[in-house]
Order: sequence, then C-alpha cells, then structure tokens
Amino acid sequence: MNSVYVVGIGPGGGEQMTGEARKALESCDIIIGYTVYIDLIRGQYPDKTFLTTPMTQEAERCRMAFEEAEQGRDVSLVCSGDAGVYGMAGLMYEIKGAYPHVNIKVVPGITAATGGAAVLGAPLMHDFAVISLSDLLTPWEKIEARLRAAAMADFVICLYNPSSRKRKDHLKRACEILLEYKRDDTVCGTVRNIGRDGEARQVMTLAELKDTEADMFTTVYIGNEQTKQIDGSMVTPRGYRNV
Amino acid sequence: MNSVYVVGIGPGGGEQMTGEARKALESCDIIIGYTVYIDLIRGQYPDKTFLTTPMTQEAERCRMAFEEAEQGRDVSLVCSGDAGVYGMAGLMYEIKGAYPHVNIKVVPGITAATGGAAVLGAPLMHDFAVISLSDLLTPWEKIEARLRAAAMADFVICLYNPSSRKRKDHLKRACEILLEYKRDDTVCGTVRNIGRDGEARQVMTLAELKDTEADMFTTVYIGNEQTKQIDGSMVTPRGYRNV
Ligand SMILES: C[S@@+](CC[C@H](N)C(=O)[O-])C[C@H]1O[C@@H](n2cnc3c(N)ncnc32)[C@H](O)[C@@H]1O
Ligand SMILES: C[S@@+](CC[C@H](N)C(=O)[O-])C[C@H]1O[C@@H](n2cnc3c(N)ncnc32)[C@H](O)[C@@H]1O
Repeated sequence: MNSVYVVGIGPGGGEQMTGEARKALESCDIIIGYTVYIDLIRGQYPDKTFLTTPMTQEAERCRMAFEEAEQGRDVSLVCSGDAGVYGMAGLMYEIKGAYPHVNIKVVPGITAATGGAAVLGAPLMHDFAVISLSDLLTPWEKIEARLRAAAMADFVICLYNPSSRKRKDHLKRACEILLEYKRDDTVCGTVRNIGRDGEARQVMTLAELKDTEADMFTTVYIGNEQTKQIDGSMVTPRGYRNV
Repeated sequence: MNSVYVVGIGPGGGEQMTGEARKALESCDIIIGYTVYIDLIRGQYPDKTFLTTPMTQEAERCRMAFEEAEQGRDVSLVCSGDAGVYGMAGLMYEIKGAYPHVNIKVVPGITAATGGAAVLGAPLMHDFAVISLSDLLTPWEKIEARLRAAAMADFVICLYNPSSRKRKDHLKRACEILLEYKRDDTVCGTVRNIGRDGEARQVMTLAELKDTEADMFTTVYIGNEQTKQIDGSMVTPRGYRNV
C-alpha cells in the first residue's frame, strides 16, 4: 500500500524540523505544498520534484498527493507548523475515501503556538486555548463565543490568523471582547515570522494589543490572570499555589 | 554571558526531536533533567555529563542548571515534549532573578497534544483547549470551570495528566462534567506512550472514555460537535461550512 506523508515542517522549515519530518522528505520522490512553504525547504532538497498550488487550492493539493501515491510514487504533502493544527491533515482524511489504496501518515511538527511561545519566554505554562480568528470556514459568532468562554475561565489564549487581507479588524474586535472579562494590563505578546528571517517579538498589555496591527504571519498570546513580564519576557506561572 | 538551553525533546526524545534541539544538546557539556527523560536520550550522547533529579525536585533542577552555567559550563535542561507546556521553562524564568549572568534560551519541542494528534489522525484541526487534570498546583474548581467553559464553547479538548498515583478518578470526574454539555457519542481518543516503545491509540465515545483508565503516560482527546471517526482515525473537520 502506498503512503502519503503529511508533514509539519515547523514554523520556519529549517532547524525546527524534526528528524522524522526530515526522513519523510528524504525518502520521497515528490514533495507537494503551498508555494510559500515549498520555498522554505526547496533549497535543502535539490534532487526532489516539487509540485505547488496556490493557497486556496487545498482540496486540489490533497488530490494531487493521493493521485501521485496511487501511481506508486512516494509523496510528502508539507504544511508549515503542524499539519494537524489548521493544516491539511484533516482534509486528507476527509478525501481519503476516494483513494482506498493509499495510506495517510501524519508527521507532527512544532506548531506556531509553541514555536512562538519559546520566543516570548513561557506564556503557555498553564491551561491554554488555541483559537483561529479566520471566519472563512467558521461563523464569527462561534469564534466570539470561544473568546468569551476562554476569557471567563482564565485560559491563556493563543490566536492564529489574527488578520488577513480582507479582514483587518479581527484582532481589535477580539481584544474588545476579551476586555469585557480581563484587565486592561493583562500581559500579551505577539511573534512575527517565527523561525524565519525577521523573527520579531513584542510584549505589551491587552489595551495596547487592541490597537496593534498583526498580519497573517503573526501569532498572538493573551496571558491569564497570573501571567507576568519578567525581564521583557512573557511568563505564565505553572500553578496557582506557591511552589 | 552564559546560557542555559531549556530544551523540549518531543514526546519520545528520538526522531521527534528537532534539529535545533539536537544542536543544543550537542553543544553542551552538561545535560540536566528528570531521570526518565534523561534515559530517553542518554544513549545518543555517550560523551556528555548527565545530572538527574527526581520528578518532584523541579526548583532544585533549575538551580542546578543556573549554577553550572554560572561556572562557565554550557548547560541544557531537558523536558519531554515542549519545555513551555507544563514543563520547566516558566520556573526557569521565575528563578532567573538570582542569576543575573545567565541567559535562558527556550528550544521548542513537539508537545504531547500535537504528537498524539498525529497518531490519532487529525483531532486538533479546529480550535482546541489544553487542560491539565493535575490538581497539585491548581485548585480542582478552576480545572472544573475550564472543562465547563471548553465544553460549552465546543472546543476540541486535550487533557494532560489524566491521572496520577494518588488521583485515579480525575478522568472519570472530568468526563461526567463534559457529559452535562456534550453528546454521549462524542468521538474521543487516547494515546499512550507517544513516540516511545509501546505507543498505542484508542478511539471511542465520550461515554466509553468515562469508564476508561488512563495513566500518567497518556494524553486524552475529546472531539467537538463535528469530530468524526474515519476508518478508525479521529478527525475534526477544519470548518463549519462545506469546503
Ligand atoms: C493556516 S494557520 C497554519 C498553522 C500551522 N499549521 C501551524 O501549526 O503553525 C496560519 C497561521 O498560523 C500562524 N503562523 C504559522 N506560521 C507562523 C510563523 N512562522 N510565524 C508566526 N505565525 C505563524 C499565524 O497566526 C498564521 O496566520
Ligand atoms: C507534566 S506534563 C509534561 C508535558 C510535556 N512538557 C509536553 O509538552 O508534552 C505530563 C503529561 O503530558 C502528557 N505526555 C507527555 N509525554 C507523553 C507521551 N510520550 N505519551 C503520552 N502522553 C504524554 C501526559 O498526559 C502526561 O501526564
């Protein structure tokens, strides 16, 4: 039975790739992915065939991978970060039924949440919620309900897709909702270009975050009640009692 | 200025380690950690000095790392999974004040949530909440409030520390709370020994999970309303609309 590896290459695709991911890519004839992610790794694998599709053609990309595998080729489908976090792994399983002779093997990667956390310090040391602000596939009311629930129960919150070309104000709206429950001076952070050229972090208050522009290459962190700034880093203590 | 690398070695410490983590360990004189994690990597680094402490001595382990670094040695403090998710990164920052001449560099790792998700299929494809059921450092009421909030807002839920030697019934209690909000047949999964010998997954309903015993080497997943079982794998669709 042929396999498609669905490979998370980490936020930057370089040193943050795992040994398992590297092995999968090395063992393949063909590597498929969104143009921007392929460009992160192409130089490291000069002998491979690369197939790219634009950002929006996700189902097409999955079908390509299955069809190459059906023809007996070893295929990797790559995603940035982890393939199972707002990546392609789920869609692969959903489409799989049409390709009974192909196996799926998901190879995990460092997701933006933990990759960016390491840049900021240690914001995710206690219970956290990961929420995407993209309303392309999710009604905004559902996103808003999750922001409220996460704020009420004092989760650390990690936001993916804080904005896009069409929706510039999602982060601002999210902060306004969070401010109904949380202190103005809740410690927050952003990391742009995790693991890539131009990696940059910022630590600030929730009030300041509300008026910050974050682009689609940024991951955003909102602390819990106990999160503090230590020497410029964002740190959430592990417990609520003294250690 | 000397540095301590706080290194996440992934769930199993082998192929799931990143290139960056491997580089940090290779560059060090001394590798410090909890005995069980050190045993996962010791064989790969025959020339290093290893210092181990028992599970509960976390502050002691941090101090050891700082003191070795102050004396000019290159030190890595290792954690399983990611050092910033219920790991040692936060405590290192909290203790740092006493060691002004030492830098902290957190090196991210695959955390159990995404490592286990890859074994199950693609359970974390939509917004998710990570909750530890350990009440050693967190009051149980706070844990319960988070379970309720996450269930109400239909997050996929990932549970760490589902039980321990002293508390055998935490997973059962958590499931009883979730069942107040969620269907009996909500798709759930467990993964034991992610990335280690004896890795094993199970997919089941929430009603079945309630009567399942999960030990401390297990990570538990509770699906959202849309999570389904596909060919024995646990898969959460990425969106609420049709793709
Ligand atoms: C469609 S999601 C893909 C997430 C990816 N599968 C992962 O696990 O990291 C895209 C969002 O992830 C975050 N992200 C992914 N890579 C990033 C990076 N290198 N730096 C900062 N944020 C990143 C951003 O919030 C971005 O809008
Ligand atoms: C104190 S937490 C440490 C988490 C770790 N820092 C991480 O990021 O994965 C311990 C819990 O993590 C989960 N865990 C860690 N490693 C695991 C593995 N190899 N297999 C299954 N679960 C694991 C289990 O739920 C365990 O009770």
